[in-house]
Amino acid sequence: MDSNDDHNQSERCFLDWMKLQEVDLGELRQALTLKEKNESLLVQIVEKVFQHFQDYVDKRAQLAHNYVSLYFAPSWNSSLENSMLWLAGCRPSSFIRLLYALCGSEVNSHLTEYIEGRKRGDLGDLSSNQLNMVNNLQSKTVKQEEKLTSKLASLQEDLADEPISIIAQRTQTQITGELNEEVERALKDQDEGMMRVMKEADNLRLNTLKELLFGILTPVQAVEYLAASKKLHLCMHEWGKTRDQMHGGRSNY
Amino acid sequence: MDSNDDHNQSERCFLDWMKLQEVDLGELRQALTLKEKNESLLVQIVEKVFQHFQDYVDKRAQLAHNYVSLYFAPSWNSSLENSMLWLAGCRPSSFIRLLYALCGSEVNSHLTEYIEGRKRGDLGDLSSNQLNMVNNLQSKTVKQEEKLTSKLASLQEDLADEPISIIAQRTQTQITGELNEEVERALKDQDEGMMRVMKEADNLRLNTLKELLFGILTPVQAVEYLAASKKLHLCMHEWGKTRDQMHGGRSNY
Repeated sequence: MDSNDDHNQSERCFLDWMKLQEVDLGELRQALTLKEKNESLLVQIVEKVFQHFQDYVDKRAQLAHNYVSLYFAPSWNSSLENSMLWLAGCRPSSFIRLLYALCGSEVNSHLTEYIEGRKRGDLGDLSSNQLNMVNNLQSKTVKQEEKLTSKLASLQEDLADEPISIIAQRTQTQITGELNEEVERALKDQDEGMMRVMKEADNLRLNTLKELLFGILTPVQAVEYLAASKKLHLCMHEWGKTRDQMHGGRSNY
Repeated sequence: MDSNDDHNQSERCFLDWMKLQEVDLGELRQALTLKEKNESLLVQIVEKVFQHFQDYVDKRAQLAHNYVSLYFAPSWNSSLENSMLWLAGCRPSSFIRLLYALCGSEVNSHLTEYIEGRKRGDLGDLSSNQLNMVNNLQSKTVKQEEKLTSKLASLQEDLADEPISIIAQRTQTQITGELNEEVERALKDQDEGMMRVMKEADNLRLNTLKELLFGILTPVQAVEYLAASKKLHLCMHEWGKTRDQMHGGRSNY
């Protein structure tokens, strides 16, 4: 692969993922409108939509091997999305915050029902057993997030340490940005660390979502949750683009 | 101010800062070559260079009020710099890591210098009292960094919570990115939180550097340290640009 394609391929991978999420959202919504809900059909949809996320994460990880730095503040994201980024993606704990928000708003009937014909949202029906499981998942996830945050911190600090900081002192008076073998090797080691921590973060994202969808929620709740989560992501992306356009920034979309 | 200028003005502010750092680096280096070092002249230079950093931080904070999101992954940074970003800038603890790296490499080169009979570098001469102060500053800084990291985490999670996540559910089926009053208000509240945490991070950066330069290092050590720190920043920026160009990304420079 021509290395100049790294950026374009990575951007294409993201844009394809956003489009696929729109399609998935349509299908999830349609499933929720069915009067007679066939449980095995709902499970199939949830599995398919989760698989799409897994595929995206896998493809992204493959592409990131060429140039992982791109993923820590992608130019294809809006500034709003990038300001919310944690280790090249969303915070796994925010999956749980979204669930709490949806439960709360369903229970309190604050949510205007966006699907006709339903008397009550299914996410308002979480049992105390389910809520316990969600609480446990939340504290487990937050702890793992904190560990990964520390790993990133230590990688970031490493850049100010040997060998990179010392190589910088030895470069010529005129700073040209030329990458000699020594710099390239040091930055490559750094990349490998970033790649490892990004993969761990991806695993935490995948496992947290998997646990919610297949370990805690009922199939109809899982469909409802996924629809809400796709909607939030798609809205944030579009809102972020609009705000960037208003403020004159980011020419990449 | 035309809101479309937000991005351009912020980018200009950063580019001016990078140019000023180059000029400052020249002056710091020149001071280090003087055979007879006039202490009050060195103090003046350190004060001036520190003031330039303070001025940059102030100007940036003023501009960020218009659109703070821009600063959490600036399009004028290279991907390498953005992957190292912590709360819209560098980690304050990395100032200390750089000092340790410089001491270490100076200490190592002392052996060579001793053998060759050359004069020793000044950062290798840190007294045990100074090293104690650096250690204390490091643990204090890391603790404050962790607190701010948690504040950011909680702001990031808030986006998946009410009101934003629920507003997203109420938007039309066709997601357009239109910002109604409710969305704008919710995102503005979010911006204010991000602005507060960015200011706290800026203060920590400024105070950590101030403590190093004026509380711990001697004037000549401070000049040497600042020269090394400017060099590292300028090299990282240029190396990052070269790497981005190699991988076909980021059209903003």
